[in-house]
Amino acid sequence: MLDHTHDAQATSWVESANRHADFPVQNLPLGIFSPKGEKDLRGGVAIGDKILCLRGAASVLSGKAAEAAKLADAASLNALFAEGNAMADTLRLGLFELLTDANKADIAGRMLFAADECDLFVPFHVGDYTDFYTGIEHAKNIGALFRPDNPLLPNYKYVPIGYHGRSSSIRASGADVIRPSGQTRPVDGETPPFQPSARLDYEMEMAIWTSGSNDLGKPVPIAEAGSHIAGLSILNDWSARDLQAWEYQPLGPFLAKNFLSTVSPWIVTSAALAPFRTAQPDRPEGDPKPLDYLWDDTDQKSGAYAISMEVLLSTAKMREAGMEPHRLSKGPMTAMYWTAAQLVAHHTVNGCNLQPGDLLGTGTLSGPDASSFGSLIELSGGGKNPIELPNGETRTFLENGDEIIMRAHGEAQGARTIGFGECRGRVVG
Amino acid sequence: MLDHTHDAQATSWVESANRHADFPVQNLPLGIFSPKGEKDLRGGVAIGDKILCLRGAASVLSGKAAEAAKLADAASLNALFAEGNAMADTLRLGLFELLTDANKADIAGRMLFAADECDLFVPFHVGDYTDFYTGIEHAKNIGALFRPDNPLLPNYKYVPIGYHGRSSSIRASGADVIRPSGQTRPVDGETPPFQPSARLDYEMEMAIWTSGSNDLGKPVPIAEAGSHIAGLSILNDWSARDLQAWEYQPLGPFLAKNFLSTVSPWIVTSAALAPFRTAQPDRPEGDPKPLDYLWDDTDQKSGAYAISMEVLLSTAKMREAGMEPHRLSKGPMTAMYWTAAQLVAHHTVNGCNLQPGDLLGTGTLSGPDASSFGSLIELSGGGKNPIELPNGETRTFLENGDEIIMRAHGEAQGARTIGFGECRGRVVG
Repeated sequence: MLDHTHDAQATSWVESANRHADFPVQNLPLGIFSPKGEKDLRGGVAIGDKILCLRGAASVLSGKAAEAAKLADAASLNALFAEGNAMADTLRLGLFELLTDANKADIAGRMLFAADECDLFVPFHVGDYTDFYTGIEHAKNIGALFRPDNPLLPNYKYVPIGYHGRSSSIRASGADVIRPSGQTRPVDGETPPFQPSARLDYEMEMAIWTSGSNDLGKPVPIAEAGSHIAGLSILNDWSARDLQAWEYQPLGPFLAKNFLSTVSPWIVTSAALAPFRTAQPDRPEGDPKPLDYLWDDTDQKSGAYAISMEVLLSTAKMREAGMEPHRLSKGPMTAMYWTAAQLVAHHTVNGCNLQPGDLLGTGTLSGPDASSFGSLIELSGGGKNPIELPNGETRTFLENGDEIIMRAHGEAQGARTIGFGECRGRVVG
Repeated sequence: MLDHTHDAQATSWVESANRHADFPVQNLPLGIFSPKGEKDLRGGVAIGDKILCLRGAASVLSGKAAEAAKLADAASLNALFAEGNAMADTLRLGLFELLTDANKADIAGRMLFAADECDLFVPFHVGDYTDFYTGIEHAKNIGALFRPDNPLLPNYKYVPIGYHGRSSSIRASGADVIRPSGQTRPVDGETPPFQPSARLDYEMEMAIWTSGSNDLGKPVPIAEAGSHIAGLSILNDWSARDLQAWEYQPLGPFLAKNFLSTVSPWIVTSAALAPFRTAQPDRPEGDPKPLDYLWDDTDQKSGAYAISMEVLLSTAKMREAGMEPHRLSKGPMTAMYWTAAQLVAHHTVNGCNLQPGDLLGTGTLSGPDASSFGSLIELSGGGKNPIELPNGETRTFLENGDEIIMRAHGEAQGARTIGFGECRGRVVG
C-alpha cells in the first residue's frame, strides 16, 4: 500500500509545505474552493499554506491524472469519486510528481492561491448523511445520562447503530452556529417551554466520505467495503441537548441535530491515510465477535486509523484578552467500536445503496476518561459539573461567542505527520 | 382560491380525461417521464391515459407559462419549484387553457404520449427526506406493540415527531421490493440471527413535497408554511419489522426502512388540491393546544386534505387465478394529527433549511379501526392474527410475489374527483 508518495523525507518546492503541520506533500488533501468573494467553485489540493487549483493543474498534468484533474474542476468532488478511488489515486500521484519536481515550480507556481485568500466549501454534494454511534465510551456516557438504569442497550455490541442525518444543513468550517430554538421537556407535566437551546453542545466526530456506489439491493461485502472509502475529514455534530431529550423518543434525534453540522473542508484521501492504518483494537473480554457479514481478518488487522483528534475552545473573553484557545480534550480515533469498513458493510447489508459523496459520521469519539471526552455533556457530567477555563470562566454548555476548533492528525512511526486542517464554528445568539 | 380550473364541468379534448378516475383536466399533476426504454427524461403532465410532454408544450404556451414549461424540461421538477409555487401555478393555468381549447387539439395532440408506453420517475431530486409520524392511531397501535406499557409517549401531542429517512433509495411506483436481510432480535440472549426479513410490511403514507426554500437559521412561520407545499403524492414506506425491533433503539429506525421507499410519480399540486382543503379535525377533549409556533387559525380551518387512501394486495396466486387485487384498508388523510403546514413550521423552527423537492412523509395514516389500518403489523395485531384473503390465503406479513397497490383520491362535494395514480411494488425474494 505504501509507495514513494509516503516517503517521510520527500519535500516540495512549495516551501511552506515542508514545515506545515497539516499539509506536507505527503498529504495532498482534496477540496472545493474559490478565490474569496468569487463564486467560481473548483477543486483544489492543499499544499502548505497554498491551494493548487486543479483547473490549472489539468493543463500541466498528463494522461489519466489530467483527466482526473478535469473531473475535479467542478463545484463538488462527486464526479472525481464516482467510480471509486482510482481517479483520485492517479491524481494524487500526478500531483506528488508535480509538487516535488523543482523544474515544475515555475509553471505550476502560477496555479497556486494563498489559502487565506480563498473560501472553502463542503467538498461533496452530500446525497445522504448517516451518523453512526461507534464511540462506545460516548454511548456509555450518554446512555447513563438519558437512561441511568440502561446505559448501553443490548444491540450495541452487535449492530453498528446509526441513523440518518440532514444533508442540507452541512456546512464547511467557519459557518456560524446559530443557536436553535425549540421545545424542551416540560416540568411537572406543564406545557413544554419553547426557548433558545440552553444546552448547546459540540460532538467530536470524524467524517467518512464514500466513493463509488452499489446498486439498490446489492450489499457491499465487508472485504470490498474499504474500497468505498474516499477519505476522511473532521465532523462537528452540533447538538441541542435539551431539545434532544424531549423529542428523541421513539424515532431518534431530529431538530436537536439538523440545524447545522460542520465539516473540515479537506478530504484526506484513503491513499494519503495508508501509513496511518492500524489494527482495530481487540474487543474487551466477553464482548461478542461481530457477525460474519461484519468480519474480515484484513479489516481487523488494518481497518482502524492512527489519528489523534483534539477539541479547543475560545471564548469571547479569551479572544479579547489575546489568549490562545484552550484544549478541552484529545483522543484517538481508535475509540471506534466498529471500523469504517464495517459501517459500509452494515449500511448496505439490507440492500441500501450508497452513492459517491455520502457522509458517514463516526459518532462522537470519546476515550475512557475526561481528557478525551468528545462533548461538553460528557465533560460536565450532564451539566452538573462546570468545567473551568484558564481565565476563570466556567462552562457547562456553549455560550454565545464561544468558538469550537477541532483538529486531527495522522501520526505513525516513520511517517510524516499529516493533518486535516481545522473544523471551526462560533456560536451566535 | 378556487378558479375556473376547478370547474367540475370543464372537459378536455383529450377524451380519456373526461371519464378518468384520476387525471381529468381539473388535476394536471406534474411528473418526470421518458418514452419507454429511452433515457431522455423530461417533465410531463398526466391527462387521462396520456402524458403531455412539457418540452413540446413550451413551444405552444406563451409568456410565463412557456418559461415554466421550459423549467420543467429537465430530469426533475426541482427547478420549476425552486422559487415557490408561482411558476407551477402559471403552468397549470396555461395547460388548462391548452387542454380545454378544442382548437389546440391538433397542434398539442402531437405532444401527447400514451402513458402506458412511458416510464415514470421520482419527480424530484430529493435533497432530504423526512418521515413524520402524524397518524396518531398508528402511533398508538405501533406503540402498543413495541412498548405495551407506554404506547403514546408524552411528547407526541406537543411535538410533530419525525426523523430523517434515506433519499438514495426512493423509487417511483413499480420498483421491485427486494426483501432485505439483517439482524433480528436474539432469543434468550443468544447471537442475533441474520436472515431475510420475515416481517416485511408496507406503510400507507402521503408524500408532501416542498417548494421554495428557507435560509439556514431562518424558520418558516406557520402562516407562510403552506406556501412551501408544492403538492402531494402517495408514499409507501416499506418496513422490515423484525429488523426494526432489534435496531431501533436508541436512535430510531435505520436498515428497517432505508432499503426502499416508493412514491407515486405524479405530483398533485397545491393548486389542484384547493377544492379538497378542509378543516383540521378538532383534537380530542383534553388534548393540549399546539404551541404558538404551530398554531394558525387559517391553517386549522383549511390545512387538512379531504383525500381518501386505499391499500390493495394482489398475491401471486390471486394473479394466477385472474382475481382482482383485494382491498386491505381504506381511510382518510385527515387521520393526520398535525397539518402539513405544521410539519413545515416545526421542521424549520430550529433554523433547519428546507429545499425545493424535499420529501416530507406523513407517517402511516391509520384510522381508528381495522378497516382503515395502514400497515399489516396493525391489521394482523403484530403478526398474531393472520388476515384472510378472498381466495383462502392468509397473511401476517408480505410474502414473495405479493404486490401492494396504493391509491388516493381527492373527494369533495361539488368538485370533480381527482386522483394520484398508483403506488405499486411487488416483493421479490
